[in-house]
Amino acid sequence: MSRIHFQNTTPAPVLVVGSVAYDDIETPRAVSGRVLGGSASFCALAAAYYAPVRLVGVVGADFEGRDTARYEARGICLRGLQRDEAGPTFYWRGRYHENFNRRDTLDIRLGVFEKFRPELPEEYRDTPFVLLGNIAPSLQAHVLDAVRKPRLVVADSMDLWINIARDDLLALMRRVDVFIVNDSEAELLTGESNAVRAGRRLREMGPATVIVKKGEHGSILFHKDGLCALPAYPVDELHDPTGAGDSFAGAFVGCLAALDRTDFAAMRTALAYATVTASLTVESFSCDRLEAAGASEISRRLAALRTLVTH
Amino acid sequence: MSRIHFQNTTPAPVLVVGSVAYDDIETPRAVSGRVLGGSASFCALAAAYYAPVRLVGVVGADFEGRDTARYEARGICLRGLQRDEAGPTFYWRGRYHENFNRRDTLDIRLGVFEKFRPELPEEYRDTPFVLLGNIAPSLQAHVLDAVRKPRLVVADSMDLWINIARDDLLALMRRVDVFIVNDSEAELLTGESNAVRAGRRLREMGPATVIVKKGEHGSILFHKDGLCALPAYPVDELHDPTGAGDSFAGAFVGCLAALDRTDFAAMRTALAYATVTASLTVESFSCDRLEAAGASEISRRLAALRTLVTH
Repeated sequence: MSRIHFQNTTPAPVLVVGSVAYDDIETPRAVSGRVLGGSASFCALAAAYYAPVRLVGVVGADFEGRDTARYEARGICLRGLQRDEAGPTFYWRGRYHENFNRRDTLDIRLGVFEKFRPELPEEYRDTPFVLLGNIAPSLQAHVLDAVRKPRLVVADSMDLWINIARDDLLALMRRVDVFIVNDSEAELLTGESNAVRAGRRLREMGPATVIVKKGEHGSILFHKDGLCALPAYPVDELHDPTGAGDSFAGAFVGCLAALDRTDFAAMRTALAYATVTASLTVESFSCDRLEAAGASEISRRLAALRTLVTH
Repeated sequence: MSRIHFQNTTPAPVLVVGSVAYDDIETPRAVSGRVLGGSASFCALAAAYYAPVRLVGVVGADFEGRDTARYEARGICLRGLQRDEAGPTFYWRGRYHENFNRRDTLDIRLGVFEKFRPELPEEYRDTPFVLLGNIAPSLQAHVLDAVRKPRLVVADSMDLWINIARDDLLALMRRVDVFIVNDSEAELLTGESNAVRAGRRLREMGPATVIVKKGEHGSILFHKDGLCALPAYPVDELHDPTGAGDSFAGAFVGCLAALDRTDFAAMRTALAYATVTASLTVESFSCDRLEAAGASEISRRLAALRTLVTH
């Protein structure tokens, strides 16, 4: 198993909750067929490059052994992954438009996710680093309720929840340490189109730290001690952006867990690793490239990112 | 006069050609009244923070002494600035929409600019660093014809010339060392919406180095030896974006002239100075903030930019 090593540290474990799904994706250039997806898959596989991961989620009767094996190959603990034989795995079919700047949901079937109530194995309840991947904020809160004294809680979300579960999301934001959103979601939440103003406003809404992701334009981290802004790792062949944000969040938390730190300097380092890890995800459908790349490719891209911003 | 100093160098002179104008600007928050504008004004006043500047342009009978004094206060040589008593100075009135992502031209009067034929004083013809600011590409080419063996030629342009003088612009691109465009212009020229692909494609069209500006998302420099990407300097109060690109170009060339270098490392440094210098321009109407900030504020912002990308 390929893992990034940091000197003089023992990686702390990371709890990841989110959706496990089958996706069917159409881009201007290709169709994926039925492939492994879901926020938890991308979060967990990305975080596993850095630290031991404990996965909380649900799959249905149709979930294939070869997909379970993908998590296992990365050493991801699946004791928290429920299998519900009463229905199929969450399914999403979508289409990206030219330039990938818009996508349509063509079909969505919640399957076993409809009745999903996350349950944490007892030993998960003391996990120090918690990533609440993109699912309904009420489920994220439910998982958070079950964790005892986490060192760092990071939450990701999406426009859907801002639109249909805004109050739940606002309540959750007051309970997390780091909140991750993309720029359009930041505007939707704050009314501010300027990312710098939106990020500052989001910090006032609860989370001590906010990360605004801007896709190909990079990201900005807002912390009480200052800002960190990084460009995206240059990718000239965007294949499928699905999961980029999830793997960004997974690598961010995973890197902090690997460093066993939560200070501003560690977060800057984690932001850089998140940037390069997410750049892998967009180069293929599903988690294929993310899984195949290996720690050496991540290290190579990190060095390239360092060079990229040198001035 | 406030100037950025680099160790062990004597700044080389910079030739700037472009428009000198009076602007009348309406933004969602304020109106400017009649103020000094034009690509040459922003280019020259920005470059003058770094190196001696020689200005080539034309003004009309209405050009005011207090505006001439603004150039003179920065030590800008005005021997190449023609005064044509036969008409008024170029005038532009425009309105920015909410979020500044679109602007309309409400009135445009070429005035003396209509018959402008740039003439270079003899001593300008050996200027080593040449900035062809945003004017018709035929005029840019005319100025370039008059310069003997420049060390570095940098050209800026805008969507107008891509639309109405594309062939002239393509011909000019084959004669310049550095071509600066914004992301939408890069797409208009190449058909590529991905900035990384567009930048690479532009290099194939002639210029050895290309800079794609992305406004609040920063910029990317494409060089044969690699890329440099920097975020924008975070500005949370955008007052008026007019002239930001011109002052970016002016600072870029000015910094290279100050270093008296044209290599990749020097260009990275120049990109950073261009980034922070342009951030001043957007904080006021006209060149007000650009002029008032002083070298110490530029140095302070450069240090902040360094910190911003540290990871």
